[in-house]
Amino acid sequence: MRNVLIIGAGRSASSLIKYLLEKSESENLFITIADLSLELATRKTNGHKNANPIEFDIHNEKQRQSEIQKADIVISMLPAHMHFEVAKDCITFKKNMVTASYISDAMLSLDAAAKENGLVFMNEVGLDPGIDHMSAMKVLDEIREQNGKIILFESFCGGLVAPESDNNLWNYKFTWAPRNVVLAGQGGAAKFIQEGTYKYIPYNKLFRRTEFLEVEGYGRFEGYANRDSLKYRSVYGLDNALTVFRGTIRRVGFSKAWDMFVQLGMTDDTYVIDDSENMNYREFVNLFLPYHPTDSVEIKLRHQLKIDQDDVMWDKLVELDLFNDTKKIGLKNATPAQALEKILNDSWALQPNDKDMIVMYHKIGYEINGQRKQIDSTMVCIGDDQTYTAMAKTVGLPVAMATLQILNGNIKTPGVQLPIKKEVYQPILKELEEYGVVFHEKEVPYKGYN
Amino acid sequence: MRNVLIIGAGRSASSLIKYLLEKSESENLFITIADLSLELATRKTNGHKNANPIEFDIHNEKQRQSEIQKADIVISMLPAHMHFEVAKDCITFKKNMVTASYISDAMLSLDAAAKENGLVFMNEVGLDPGIDHMSAMKVLDEIREQNGKIILFESFCGGLVAPESDNNLWNYKFTWAPRNVVLAGQGGAAKFIQEGTYKYIPYNKLFRRTEFLEVEGYGRFEGYANRDSLKYRSVYGLDNALTVFRGTIRRVGFSKAWDMFVQLGMTDDTYVIDDSENMNYREFVNLFLPYHPTDSVEIKLRHQLKIDQDDVMWDKLVELDLFNDTKKIGLKNATPAQALEKILNDSWALQPNDKDMIVMYHKIGYEINGQRKQIDSTMVCIGDDQTYTAMAKTVGLPVAMATLQILNGNIKTPGVQLPIKKEVYQPILKELEEYGVVFHEKEVPYKGYN
Repeated sequence: MRNVLIIGAGRSASSLIKYLLEKSESENLFITIADLSLELATRKTNGHKNANPIEFDIHNEKQRQSEIQKADIVISMLPAHMHFEVAKDCITFKKNMVTASYISDAMLSLDAAAKENGLVFMNEVGLDPGIDHMSAMKVLDEIREQNGKIILFESFCGGLVAPESDNNLWNYKFTWAPRNVVLAGQGGAAKFIQEGTYKYIPYNKLFRRTEFLEVEGYGRFEGYANRDSLKYRSVYGLDNALTVFRGTIRRVGFSKAWDMFVQLGMTDDTYVIDDSENMNYREFVNLFLPYHPTDSVEIKLRHQLKIDQDDVMWDKLVELDLFNDTKKIGLKNATPAQALEKILNDSWALQPNDKDMIVMYHKIGYEINGQRKQIDSTMVCIGDDQTYTAMAKTVGLPVAMATLQILNGNIKTPGVQLPIKKEVYQPILKELEEYGVVFHEKEVPYKGYN
Repeated sequence: MRNVLIIGAGRSASSLIKYLLEKSESENLFITIADLSLELATRKTNGHKNANPIEFDIHNEKQRQSEIQKADIVISMLPAHMHFEVAKDCITFKKNMVTASYISDAMLSLDAAAKENGLVFMNEVGLDPGIDHMSAMKVLDEIREQNGKIILFESFCGGLVAPESDNNLWNYKFTWAPRNVVLAGQGGAAKFIQEGTYKYIPYNKLFRRTEFLEVEGYGRFEGYANRDSLKYRSVYGLDNALTVFRGTIRRVGFSKAWDMFVQLGMTDDTYVIDDSENMNYREFVNLFLPYHPTDSVEIKLRHQLKIDQDDVMWDKLVELDLFNDTKKIGLKNATPAQALEKILNDSWALQPNDKDMIVMYHKIGYEINGQRKQIDSTMVCIGDDQTYTAMAKTVGLPVAMATLQILNGNIKTPGVQLPIKKEVYQPILKELEEYGVVFHEKEVPYKGYN
């Protein structure tokens, strides 16, 4: 039996664990599932005989080292800042390691040691980062193999609610960390390159400069720019591309409506509201509106945002019960962003039977034999239920598959890395198709921006 | 002779030094002017026989302690974070101390020690903070002495260009630190209380929610909200006032035009522009505009900001030479805010014969015998030249006057303090009038916001 240690049994580990347990017979795997909560770890094993759930504290050095020593490979599904302790032990005991997180500077500092010991430290092999790298690199490599020259790269990803559960005016529910949704785009301008020119979009315009996307069978979406579109510019070999843009996908109309909160100042996370605990929703809204002796909160808000009462923007706000004067924020020392998250969660929490959806969209423009062409690559994944969500599948399955490929010696180039090499992405993308994670690549006319 | 030690001979010390030297005969003063630059210190003495300019390094403990020990009173005109070293020595050697800076937590921690030693540590006795405290407290105390109850307090101050030097469309020049002007209002919402309700204005709306002010003989101004209007709410005894607001004064139209920079994202100081050094002004502007294959930067900007070519907003931008494609930013690793400051400085730098102007405006509403009344108190001060600017006079003179009052035993209540006691503000406000700093108080109809 080969021992796999999975540290962290949270939401994104469900499909990962299920996959490895299903393969445990044919692949001779024994899976140790380590979590602070023994109950959670046990639940995720489903009573499988090849699984051993254990109570595990990452800060308990003795236990950590003993478990890592027993393993043949280690998967860390911990929060990103906790990987480093695990990684150091993996160097000490010469174990391969897999994570779904961005490569931190700390992690990168172990690159030489990993290479010296012939160890694969595979990171960013979840969804985003992960499947985005793999599916993009596949198209990029294919174009380059034909001597095509990449001139445009745009990549979008979003976690949304599945069409069958999409029943509010925002066409949105919280399928992942709500706090990240409320704070999206803050902390600096969005940066990208378009037709050879750097472009910056300030936060106050971010949700008003969106791009439309159409996915066959799923209709229209929109994308707003991510903070730093240029992070992978060199990694992907795009230093000469004229346009490099990464964005977040929402249903059309979400961004325009979200911008109302931005303009009002409700997404601010830098200060605390006085007596937020006892404040009702209506009073919260009123904080951001100019004083008027007789106008209602509703009228002041419509006036401030210049929206008519028969505008769907208005209906979207009413749907959130934003003007309720009995519902309390109920959070001590809340920032506006925290209070807004509370209000949104009333309307946008996933219900027991709701399913989520992941949408990914790459546009890759290139020049070949003097012609400009474009390939659009799209993927939609719908969750099975609230455990095996689209998010859990798309994050966990590539982690699991990478783990097995490393165990079986198919991925063997050592070092701290992300899945951009063909030896890595090819088998994983292929296997993902069996699990319904399928990219549709299509030649479309190249448009660019000129 | 009584020894006065002035540490820091920068711009705001000019009128301070001049005042004390003029008084040195009648008041038996000997003034030591200590600065990193001996040349600067010497220039400010004007060859006066009662002045001794010295080269001085605040971090040289021996020199610092020796000079403080020789003094009867110490004035620190250093940057605010440097006062603490001086203050500790003043405790050790039992010297009174005066600054024009906000009371820091470090400074406040010396309150008990100052009181124990019977020392006056007078702070915030410049313009703003300083004259604003004194002139406001005078009106507040007078109303309270008649048993009036304060219901509204608004206080505005601004450093502007004098009418005789006001020759650009913005009616503005840099009369003080340009960087603070570019960054004004950033880092959180503006907070105040209006008719009993807390109000927050996010940065992206700050310059669109202004209030107009009229000063007899000087025309109309506007005020935008300061970050924290409530800082002195308790200090001034305004906990029961329905409206408490502090703001910054500009000429009417400045804020609306400034908001163009805010909306474009040009005031952002949180990230660095790629290759800012070799970028020309036109390219800088283009960073913040959506790409278009044929539209010019001018057309894209007008489209983005929705302004017509015959709108004065447009003329204001053109006046700044914002679209020049030969002038370079010329700063390495500049943030947008730094690049903008560079561009503005071409147009807004004070010219050799320009004069500056300080405007202060308080509105104080109160209830007395069942009636609601209001007193408006206004002050305008014009600079003499580029040395004895309105800023230097209004910052330096009250510091100098407070110093003399302390030396002469007229201000004697010990402790770390700001000038809100009658024993402090009464003689200083009276003497300031001789120097042209005159408040005009006027009963006006109470309007409030209801």
